[in-house]
Amino acid sequence: MDEFSLIAGIFAPLARDAPGAFGLTDDAALVQVPVGRRRVVTNDMIVSGVHFLADDPPALVGRKLLRINLSDLAAMGATPRAYLLAIAVPRGMEEGWLGEFARGLGEDQTAYGVSLIGGDTVATDGPLTASVTALGEVRDGGELLRAGARPGDLVFVSGTLGDAALGLMALRGELKGVDGADRDALAERYRLPRPRVALGQRLSGLAHAAIDVSDGLVADLGHICDCSGVGAEIEVARLPLSTAARVAVGAAPALMSAALSGGDDYEIAFTCSADAATEVAAVSDALDLPITRIGRVVKGAGVAVVDENGEVINVKSTGYRHF
Amino acid sequence: MDEFSLIAGIFAPLARDAPGAFGLTDDAALVQVPVGRRRVVTNDMIVSGVHFLADDPPALVGRKLLRINLSDLAAMGATPRAYLLAIAVPRGMEEGWLGEFARGLGEDQTAYGVSLIGGDTVATDGPLTASVTALGEVRDGGELLRAGARPGDLVFVSGTLGDAALGLMALRGELKGVDGADRDALAERYRLPRPRVALGQRLSGLAHAAIDVSDGLVADLGHICDCSGVGAEIEVARLPLSTAARVAVGAAPALMSAALSGGDDYEIAFTCSADAATEVAAVSDALDLPITRIGRVVKGAGVAVVDENGEVINVKSTGYRHF
Repeated sequence: MDEFSLIAGIFAPLARDAPGAFGLTDDAALVQVPVGRRRVVTNDMIVSGVHFLADDPPALVGRKLLRINLSDLAAMGATPRAYLLAIAVPRGMEEGWLGEFARGLGEDQTAYGVSLIGGDTVATDGPLTASVTALGEVRDGGELLRAGARPGDLVFVSGTLGDAALGLMALRGELKGVDGADRDALAERYRLPRPRVALGQRLSGLAHAAIDVSDGLVADLGHICDCSGVGAEIEVARLPLSTAARVAVGAAPALMSAALSGGDDYEIAFTCSADAATEVAAVSDALDLPITRIGRVVKGAGVAVVDENGEVINVKSTGYRHF
Repeated sequence: MDEFSLIAGIFAPLARDAPGAFGLTDDAALVQVPVGRRRVVTNDMIVSGVHFLADDPPALVGRKLLRINLSDLAAMGATPRAYLLAIAVPRGMEEGWLGEFARGLGEDQTAYGVSLIGGDTVATDGPLTASVTALGEVRDGGELLRAGARPGDLVFVSGTLGDAALGLMALRGELKGVDGADRDALAERYRLPRPRVALGQRLSGLAHAAIDVSDGLVADLGHICDCSGVGAEIEVARLPLSTAARVAVGAAPALMSAALSGGDDYEIAFTCSADAATEVAAVSDALDLPITRIGRVVKGAGVAVVDENGEVINVKSTGYRHF
């Protein structure tokens, strides 16, 4: 297995449909952006043993890597178009692993309408390490930024929160009182995020600020607050939980922290003006995706979490930090 | 040292001058391409212990990583604009290393007119691994591809060949009969490539096919032949050698193979029609950069290397393979 045969045999088929990729045989790729639209670029890296487990199914690892990048594009309101993959492969690794990894990428390429257009393949004496750079495009001025939230805005979040963190606990055997289909549903949320690509595009021109929830709601909403120069108040009773998460929290109420601080849900948190609430509801209906109002933007700084009585709850962890 | 302080303290200053980078605080970066120009994207990854040594000066490691990407843009005729950096940092690594690494990047940002616009910072239990995605732009139709060489074309190469491979030998103490300034000159060529960015831009519209010499002349010219459906004939006596390389080859003639098969020179090999030779000479003068005619494109396939008598030389190694 040398670099050239790896590229030709495993990765070049993923570049088949992108004319500017030249079958991965040229020095670089060419991409075009229609007039009136802007290029959006993002880049995420994963390391075996840190972001996934060595015995995770390789197809899922590939899909997750692509999806976390698509989630960043979604949070900018962008339409995904293409991606590059740089991968450091442990010496002696079985080619079958990479074949499965590429099969997973190919499956999601079709689902999300993107193509591989370039990258690099190198050897490493360390753990498998892979980086995806995803390219999307957005209408000029239609980009969703973290800056832009205004006091008086409502805060919304898509889907449900805490599932991925609870799923990781379940995979580690640390989650009590949750079995069968509920356990599987949580584990699936951890293993395979669902980037809210269609939602991001609908929010372009509607939301004032947006972010994808990867580090945890309180931490990520904190980024919106920092960038916008505002504060936010979140009502814990409003946080959307899946059926499986409700079962877990019912058995151990402290697990509610997963919805506040758990990472990897890849939902979109956003703010918009109060009079846009009807339009948000219409988007929710059109996409058949729950979108829940969870709080509001206030003057000040930071994220305050309040209980049913309006009392501020002390949130210990403010997100997943990698170091 | 956590992810957020690392980004804010060390990498965000490198994004200061790029408006679409949002100080590395948003989900993705925004880049614009002027009408009539196309985006060019490339991506290279390096691993400690494989592509550089753990005790190499970190500023040089940063500069080399950026430069090998700029070399790919140069080989497409593109003007570099921006880059993203994904880096997996060994746990417990001293922040001073990363500070120096970033200082090197900053130095070359200024030299080449690019800015950091995004990326990712993660922890690893393995060796430091870093990936740069570089973005450039080229006039519509002005891109230099590997496909495009035609029988009858002349083959040219910029600068000198073999220096980097000899420099690596010198750094490993494997190069006899070369000392002092000659040794240092070779080592410098290995440690710090000089991407031929200005040359690439001048060749747009002039060359029929181009590639940067990273795997070795014969291997890389072979890529042009494969993509173009042609063969090439190279005269070994014409290969341009630096003074230091001539000293090394004088002491051990077998080292001539470094000029044929040694990697990492990052010169540009290209083909153009015979009547463009005068224009190529003018580009060489304007850039004060030697450009040498080393052979010609022929019908057929593959690269043949011939000696002074027109006899074909058997070239054993066809380039550096990473696996």
